[in-house]
Amino acid sequence: MNFCSHCGKSVSLKIPEDDNRPRHVCDNCGNIHYQNPKIVAGCIPEWQGKILLCRRAIEPRYGLWTIPAGYMENGETLEQAACRETEEEACARVDLDGLYAVYNIPHVSQVYTIFRGQLADGAFAPGAESLETALFEENQIPWGEIAFPVVDRTLKRFFLDRPEQRFATFVDTVAPPARRR
Amino acid sequence: MNFCSHCGKSVSLKIPEDDNRPRHVCDNCGNIHYQNPKIVAGCIPEWQGKILLCRRAIEPRYGLWTIPAGYMENGETLEQAACRETEEEACARVDLDGLYAVYNIPHVSQVYTIFRGQLADGAFAPGAESLETALFEENQIPWGEIAFPVVDRTLKRFFLDRPEQRFATFVDTVAPPARRR
Repeated sequence: MNFCSHCGKSVSLKIPEDDNRPRHVCDNCGNIHYQNPKIVAGCIPEWQGKILLCRRAIEPRYGLWTIPAGYMENGETLEQAACRETEEEACARVDLDGLYAVYNIPHVSQVYTIFRGQLADGAFAPGAESLETALFEENQIPWGEIAFPVVDRTLKRFFLDRPEQRFATFVDTVAPPARRR
Repeated sequence: MNFCSHCGKSVSLKIPEDDNRPRHVCDNCGNIHYQNPKIVAGCIPEWQGKILLCRRAIEPRYGLWTIPAGYMENGETLEQAACRETEEEACARVDLDGLYAVYNIPHVSQVYTIFRGQLADGAFAPGAESLETALFEENQIPWGEIAFPVVDRTLKRFFLDRPEQRFATFVDTVAPPARRR
């Protein structure tokens, strides 16, 4: 951030009065420009016991498989965001069952939320951001080609929880890649 | 938003290519300035069965009671944000027990998260944003003077869940005030 989005003049990084961390503050109008974590919402769409995955047509992780998920928009609920992403990426309508996973990803300032859901009618197709969409039985999941650690981790836990149908919401934190080595 | 925070030139509200909703797009450098929901994190701090509340020294809802909660910062986890807010608003250290409530507040583009927690040592005092901090037994909670509907709703549910110690995470949506009439 170089300029004030309100008045167009330059900003400086400094700690405002009554605050305790540096913010971008306008040198002219004094507006403080806060930057906050972003929310991702997605779901694990089930259909007759199979899981719908999308193969990414965009970076990052082009060509790898993931669940439908993306940035929550202003004015939405988490559920609306998860359903919209499923519609956009997999052309599928989904009825959500409940919030399953909440991940802190502090090194990229994200909170990643994942619901469980059932496809409404079994229809799906690749959306603009997907190369391919497909249903997978548990033993068909392309584990070596999952796009994101949170998705890999959530699907593994999902298959552990599914036999007993006990899906308590869990919260976990993803460490940055360098610390996972 | 009137100006591009990257190059300082004017922005226009328009739908970018490959997008489906209006964004602030720079007329000069083409940067797209997304705006996304903000996350609030807080907790219900317990001490020997009593609940620690803060009387607000700031607007909105100056003078009314609430739990410690505030905007999550970049680089934080939800848990770190909840603990930091408890320290800032009530000068109290808290050990969190688990995520209890997640509220969509779409009319203000917020997701409000509330953990349960225990005060680490029973110490507390008003922080800069609080007029007063106090521990309340269930029958002492100042119900008519609670600052926010999500806090009122969460505390009522908490006292219903507490006898059985069954605190499943729940997700709910807050309607805008006009629709609550």
